[in-house]
Amino acid sequence: MAVYTDVTADDLNEFLAGYDIGAALSYKGIAEGVENSNFLVHTAKGNFILTLYEKRVAEKDLPFFLALMEHLATRGITCPQPVKTKNGGMLGRLAGRPAAIVTFLDGLWIRRPTAHHCAAVGEALARLHLAGKDFHKQRANALGMPSWRALYEHAKPRGDSVRQGLCAEIAKELDALEKSWPRGLPEGVIHADLFPDNVFFLGDRLSGLIDFYFACIDTLAFDVAVCLNAWCFEPDHSYNVTKGRALLNAYAKVRALTGQERAALPVLARGAAMRFLLTRLVDWLAVPDGALVKPKDPLEYYWKVRFHQSVESVRDYGIS
Amino acid sequence: MAVYTDVTADDLNEFLAGYDIGAALSYKGIAEGVENSNFLVHTAKGNFILTLYEKRVAEKDLPFFLALMEHLATRGITCPQPVKTKNGGMLGRLAGRPAAIVTFLDGLWIRRPTAHHCAAVGEALARLHLAGKDFHKQRANALGMPSWRALYEHAKPRGDSVRQGLCAEIAKELDALEKSWPRGLPEGVIHADLFPDNVFFLGDRLSGLIDFYFACIDTLAFDVAVCLNAWCFEPDHSYNVTKGRALLNAYAKVRALTGQERAALPVLARGAAMRFLLTRLVDWLAVPDGALVKPKDPLEYYWKVRFHQSVESVRDYGIS
Repeated sequence: MAVYTDVTADDLNEFLAGYDIGAALSYKGIAEGVENSNFLVHTAKGNFILTLYEKRVAEKDLPFFLALMEHLATRGITCPQPVKTKNGGMLGRLAGRPAAIVTFLDGLWIRRPTAHHCAAVGEALARLHLAGKDFHKQRANALGMPSWRALYEHAKPRGDSVRQGLCAEIAKELDALEKSWPRGLPEGVIHADLFPDNVFFLGDRLSGLIDFYFACIDTLAFDVAVCLNAWCFEPDHSYNVTKGRALLNAYAKVRALTGQERAALPVLARGAAMRFLLTRLVDWLAVPDGALVKPKDPLEYYWKVRFHQSVESVRDYGIS
Repeated sequence: MAVYTDVTADDLNEFLAGYDIGAALSYKGIAEGVENSNFLVHTAKGNFILTLYEKRVAEKDLPFFLALMEHLATRGITCPQPVKTKNGGMLGRLAGRPAAIVTFLDGLWIRRPTAHHCAAVGEALARLHLAGKDFHKQRANALGMPSWRALYEHAKPRGDSVRQGLCAEIAKELDALEKSWPRGLPEGVIHADLFPDNVFFLGDRLSGLIDFYFACIDTLAFDVAVCLNAWCFEPDHSYNVTKGRALLNAYAKVRALTGQERAALPVLARGAAMRFLLTRLVDWLAVPDGALVKPKDPLEYYWKVRFHQSVESVRDYGIS
């Protein structure tokens, strides 16, 4: 949860004057998104989300994210759509920060996904990948495989305080990943962070995708692996093959996985788990002892790495 | 800002089934209220606020707060109105906590109040006091003068870490307040926490009052003193006599201050400043070093106590 920057009513209304959505009737900081400050703004034209981009999001990347949301929305992906200023721009400044307004999406995120939800997210991910095909802006994955070694080095001095022997296990796994990382798989726009809190449902129907601030151009099947980790494990860290099968089959109905992609899925899943283990570990170690806000548990992803190390082939995920 | 308890979509919709407002189309934790968890819930019937009462609010007090909001709303005070369940109740349970739904109020809170805003809040406060006249539930002020000594004792062991000599000054001031505390002034419903973030404006017009979770029966003029402290000082801790005059005169136009109330205002203002100095000090000391969330600065209220100690009569506040 996060509101890092407060906004005065005068500053907000001056900012809104650049748009055609009317003055603010209310605005409330919302406890969503760990990287930016988000406000729900109510005007006579409806509800909108105002985002102030804090320093963890690189300002140079914002045009990519905003253009991508617009691109996807025009291709039938329900996602927040940047509202344009009277001058046609999508990005402004407010309270000293880059800021944008996007449309508000109805929908609830699912705290306890079922196989039905996993199938819906698999299908939506495949549609996202297809819709991204003709998007031509570039952004490398800042948290892709080549970045993990540096994250590990950052966490190494205190990493074993989280679990005895953790650093040695990570080092060994990084060696293995670097050696076996697949090349030449289909690439394109990936969401890269499609966790349950970024997927909205209305009743049983998937109603929208949000938070494109990790989106980039990378291996499509890596995005599938991220979702497998985020949606198909139980709270006791066990893999739920019914959920995994549902997600993968629903994906493949929209965009077939190539033989190479299927063969690479175990190592991609290990890598995807390693990426979240490392970023959570760095965040965990950055928080002082006794702080009120505890970041997400890195060890959840340690157990996922361990599971995928034991996987022999894509059959273990529930598909052939 | 606060969301202490998360709520699942299933639990929320089961809870909402007890009401006549439809299912949730969205719900977002909002960064408002330091005592409770608040969600903005959107249904086909509009926007609502869902509050989960956390342990700092005594469950036995909830019927007082909810009945008061209903009482005030029916007497023309714009404030959140408890939404009744199909059974006519106002209080339920959700995620293991007492929970209620209230109507959503449009409006923005003013980060930098002008004398105009101070006048508006003075008038609204007086209207609130009049509207509370025929409210017959009882609730003592848990943070009134008799409670301050215990707060001080709680803070004493480490209080001087905030400012050298602070504890001795507080002890001396408490002696003085206990000796000179006024008796027999008009009593009734007070808001007790009418800070700028609890007062909404639409344009220049005051549009509503929120957060009645400190409301109680106490000296009406004490509530005036709380507002004087909350609205009429500058960021450099100086008292702004133009703002104070505006607030007090606007109040008195609706509900005249008696001679005794005017005479008692300096000591009430010292006491009102002491109350927030003490609670902020206790909160400040409760937070571990290096925590990400810093509570409000207690010393802001130390300087207000100091100012009021130098006041000779109500003339120093700008009225006669």
